[in-house]
Amino acid sequence: MPLTMTREVFITCAVTGSGQTQDRSPHVPRSPEDIAEAAIDAAKAGAAIAHLHVRDPETGQPSRDPALYRRAVDLIRASDTDVILNLTAGMGGDLVFGPPDRPLPLADGTDFISADDRLTHIAECRPEICTLDCGTMNFAEADYVMTNTPGMLRAMGRRMEALGVKPEVECFDTGHLWFAKQLVAEGVLSDPALVQLCMGVPWGAPNDLATFNAMVAAIPEHWTFSAFSLGRDQMAYAAAAILAGGHIRVGLEDNLFLEKGVLATNAQLVERARGIAEAMGARILSPAEVREKLGLKAYHPEAAQ
Amino acid sequence: MPLTMTREVFITCAVTGSGQTQDRSPHVPRSPEDIAEAAIDAAKAGAAIAHLHVRDPETGQPSRDPALYRRAVDLIRASDTDVILNLTAGMGGDLVFGPPDRPLPLADGTDFISADDRLTHIAECRPEICTLDCGTMNFAEADYVMTNTPGMLRAMGRRMEALGVKPEVECFDTGHLWFAKQLVAEGVLSDPALVQLCMGVPWGAPNDLATFNAMVAAIPEHWTFSAFSLGRDQMAYAAAAILAGGHIRVGLEDNLFLEKGVLATNAQLVERARGIAEAMGARILSPAEVREKLGLKAYHPEAAQ
Amino acid sequence: MPLTMTREVFITCAVTGSGQTQDRSPHVPRSPEDIAEAAIDAAKAGAAIAHLHVRDPETGQPSRDPALYRRAVDLIRASDTDVILNLTAGMGGDLVFGPPDRPLPLADGTDFISADDRLTHIAECRPEICTLDCGTMNFAEADYVMTNTPGMLRAMGRRMEALGVKPEVECFDTGHLWFAKQLVAEGVLSDPALVQLCMGVPWGAPNDLATFNAMVAAIPEHWTFSAFSLGRDQMAYAAAAILAGGHIRVGLEDNLFLEKGVLATNAQLVERARGIAEAMGARILSPAEVREKLGLKAYHPEAAQ
Amino acid sequence: MPLTMTREVFITCAVTGSGQTQDRSPHVPRSPEDIAEAAIDAAKAGAAIAHLHVRDPETGQPSRDPALYRRAVDLIRASDTDVILNLTAGMGGDLVFGPPDRPLPLADGTDFISADDRLTHIAECRPEICTLDCGTMNFAEADYVMTNTPGMLRAMGRRMEALGVKPEVECFDTGHLWFAKQLVAEGVLSDPALVQLCMGVPWGAPNDLATFNAMVAAIPEHWTFSAFSLGRDQMAYAAAAILAGGHIRVGLEDNLFLEKGVLATNAQLVERARGIAEAMGARILSPAEVREKLGLKAYHPEAAQ
Ligand SMILES: [Zn+2]
Ligand SMILES: [Zn+2]
Ligand SMILES: [Zn+2]
Ligand SMILES: [Zn+2]
Repeated sequence: MPLTMTREVFITCAVTGSGQTQDRSPHVPRSPEDIAEAAIDAAKAGAAIAHLHVRDPETGQPSRDPALYRRAVDLIRASDTDVILNLTAGMGGDLVFGPPDRPLPLADGTDFISADDRLTHIAECRPEICTLDCGTMNFAEADYVMTNTPGMLRAMGRRMEALGVKPEVECFDTGHLWFAKQLVAEGVLSDPALVQLCMGVPWGAPNDLATFNAMVAAIPEHWTFSAFSLGRDQMAYAAAAILAGGHIRVGLEDNLFLEKGVLATNAQLVERARGIAEAMGARILSPAEVREKLGLKAYHPEAAQ
Repeated sequence: MPLTMTREVFITCAVTGSGQTQDRSPHVPRSPEDIAEAAIDAAKAGAAIAHLHVRDPETGQPSRDPALYRRAVDLIRASDTDVILNLTAGMGGDLVFGPPDRPLPLADGTDFISADDRLTHIAECRPEICTLDCGTMNFAEADYVMTNTPGMLRAMGRRMEALGVKPEVECFDTGHLWFAKQLVAEGVLSDPALVQLCMGVPWGAPNDLATFNAMVAAIPEHWTFSAFSLGRDQMAYAAAAILAGGHIRVGLEDNLFLEKGVLATNAQLVERARGIAEAMGARILSPAEVREKLGLKAYHPEAAQ
Repeated sequence: MPLTMTREVFITCAVTGSGQTQDRSPHVPRSPEDIAEAAIDAAKAGAAIAHLHVRDPETGQPSRDPALYRRAVDLIRASDTDVILNLTAGMGGDLVFGPPDRPLPLADGTDFISADDRLTHIAECRPEICTLDCGTMNFAEADYVMTNTPGMLRAMGRRMEALGVKPEVECFDTGHLWFAKQLVAEGVLSDPALVQLCMGVPWGAPNDLATFNAMVAAIPEHWTFSAFSLGRDQMAYAAAAILAGGHIRVGLEDNLFLEKGVLATNAQLVERARGIAEAMGARILSPAEVREKLGLKAYHPEAAQ
Repeated sequence: MPLTMTREVFITCAVTGSGQTQDRSPHVPRSPEDIAEAAIDAAKAGAAIAHLHVRDPETGQPSRDPALYRRAVDLIRASDTDVILNLTAGMGGDLVFGPPDRPLPLADGTDFISADDRLTHIAECRPEICTLDCGTMNFAEADYVMTNTPGMLRAMGRRMEALGVKPEVECFDTGHLWFAKQLVAEGVLSDPALVQLCMGVPWGAPNDLATFNAMVAAIPEHWTFSAFSLGRDQMAYAAAAILAGGHIRVGLEDNLFLEKGVLATNAQLVERARGIAEAMGARILSPAEVREKLGLKAYHPEAAQ
């Protein structure tokens, strides 16, 4: 009944994402080198976790080439800066349809592969965390569906656990969270689970407080969650997540601006979120502290053989 | 700040649905004749609206054959009992995938047709209301996705409005409701919209009160909404909907039981919901009153030429 | 995340109260004999608990004469009908002030006595439950304050526990509930506590769902709570309490009407609430079941010596 | 449904209060000169409104001596710094009782005066805003009650409005807010009203988010509200208030610490809250902007004759 805000908070920086943002800001990292540098800078600014996608170094187009992941991961691990690696496993679930008067056959842009193929880079790179987008939903695009069926999620979740990589369950709406609990109940995912509440992503859960609080209330108390909002409310959500007992995610994957008209770097976003958290009276957790808190299996090169 | 419960409430009876329930209860109507009779009995018990799917009269399998719709609708219109017709437009958005190790090509059971084809029976029968499932999501089946892309929803919504049929926007999760507001903002749907909150349908919004209240809070005050929960909480949700300022949906589409172990008829479910509503101090609205409240365009045969 | 409605619910009937209602309905019981009869009838209709105040048999004015309590209690205990007795301890905390231009000295109507004196009838009658109005607040009257200071509440709570009478903590606003938790934390009240959420009593907590749900969320999960709303929403609150995981209170203390313009008896109100609960799928608990659930110390005559 | 956070926010600094804090921090201002200086420094740091109590310059004990108010107000008005003055009208409603075994007569510390007497300093100083503590409740002290009866509140509210001073309705629990709406409905207070949500003050509303959000939801949309939490969550509540669409109050009346073990000045608290607000993407309003937003009647010396 007293406020149960997070007194010890960790920050995830989502440094690049798979959105069509690479031409909208010069700060969106494209090459593995740029991505590694962004992750390291974010860690120096206070992020305990770096969430990575990779992109074609030339075009900036999102890619799921394991070699690009490998390169970025190796660079970060070879650096002097400690940061927990969280790789996306969100790619390979893309359906694109024809127009409403002829929706089939599936159209160009469809990239819909097997559970194992979606985790090739995870098996190779052995990050401490990887994401599991816990459902199927529409996005802003008229003919696109992010598709993760229950069967696919079970297969992917089992494989992540077998690899010793902690799944971060991305919940874009209340039903995704419900299914996450089902996956734990079935023993597919280990308990406690790690959740990311992805708010304000069209057309998933909007980022109003009532929806956010309902989702928070549905998370078992012994789980850990983080939350973010897409777009201009990113910093407001740093505060909202803390107030609700959760952790913070910021970064260029979700928001390009430091303030109206001012493009941000990943490190600047982390720094600003950290400032909010500390001004609210929270302490920022280091990668080592988060590793212990979440029971993460630290990477050892031989484990990835 | 005082309780804003519904003092004048309408009941929708969803008499049969498209679920695999036909062999689980002898009361699930299969033929157009059975469906018409169920709708009429529900109306006599207090339902202002009958929500219909049709089924193959022999097998009970769900069907989207316009002739079956036409037959059921004609029988109801020819009866002495007034009831507002609400036909599903939910069929034809079914994707079934292969197993997680080979998800494509699309598998048997896929039924994914154009916007116009999904509304053939609506154009022929001209019900006063038809449903618009306002998003894409997983269901209980491992390899199935209910798929309604933004583009498809815009095309279907526009066509419904052009036909003079009021869309009832089925919201299975918070993002569906958000997109419903987008459709109104774009002018695709007329304002105020009519919403059905579909709670407890795996893997959409669970039926806990916090999620329900967050969805209710997101509905513009001048819209009208109804709500139901799948399964054993159907009658609890009759009460929840009233308390929240909404209207009631019951029926065999959503729940087969009157109480544990006792199979229900549609009319019995309506009668029980009506009892709860009246005991709570609400008055039940007639079809004529609902027609006026929602501004429905009553059916005239010549309009359907 | 699924609805956590109460599947096994108990009903308290508050048969008469201390309000100025005795001339507004012939069904408000005045004499101990009438009160006993009302309690017994309520129990026969399904109430497991009878909550009693007493009144002057002639005038109907509220009274705290222990002899009147004794008489009502003896009659109920001598009957063939089992019901848990819950006596008010709310009287004796009344302050009435002069008008705003001369608020002191305290005016006629002030009845402000010691903790022991407020519990004389409790010590004599040894009901299984008695109420503890857990705070100080304004009521509808312009110059009146219901006054229960923290010090008084500690003294009364300790005495109730010493007497072996379970305190039912009446929470008229969120701060009262907060202090109830403080009383348990201090060891004044035993854990788990029993709570009554008193909604819609001016000028305490209004009976809107958001306030109600916030109060419910603040109750520790292992406690038991009941809830009611003053006035015309009494039956709506029977449903709200069940949906929220609580128990029901109805009766003429809180509401005189069965429906608009129709005066109710206590038994009719219990019967109607029971109907709602059963239609929603809940089972009604007997006094013996509630005794066991709450760990109540059944009355034995020798214990009251 | 999108987050409705406050994009343009004002800060009130409550510089000293009436609590027994004067010996707990050297920064709690005591003399009118100190109080004026604190208010001016707070304004320079970003506060648009200074909320003042006065204290005995020697002992630091709270006082309601109009001469002390006059002195502080004159100093602020004579300065070069613009700030809206908000004077407390909370004093003079104090009841202190004897112990639970002999609660009457009223004990030392009781200070319970007429409506006019409680507003003497308001009539003399004509601040733009003064507070109206909108109810009666217990505080942490065992035998104390803050007493503001409905009758007294009506009298005080009418007088404030007649004086042209905007009442800021202090709501310490949900019932206080309900009564504020009643005062507006009765025409005692003008519409829209200005509300301060006072969270975490024992034994009023606790500062958990559910209670806070329920109170926010109960405020009419066209009203303006601010919110604070007592104690260590003061800065967390700066964020919570913004997220909820409200405005900020900080200051030594509510919290003495900048962080654990570090005593704060009023200006430091304003500066920190401002930092949070700006990092969240809000702009801080100036006194002139708040005056216009709230329709405040700026002070003119002749008006106070
Ligand atoms: Zn990502
Ligand atoms: Zn249907
Ligand atoms: Zn009572
Ligand atoms: Zn103050």
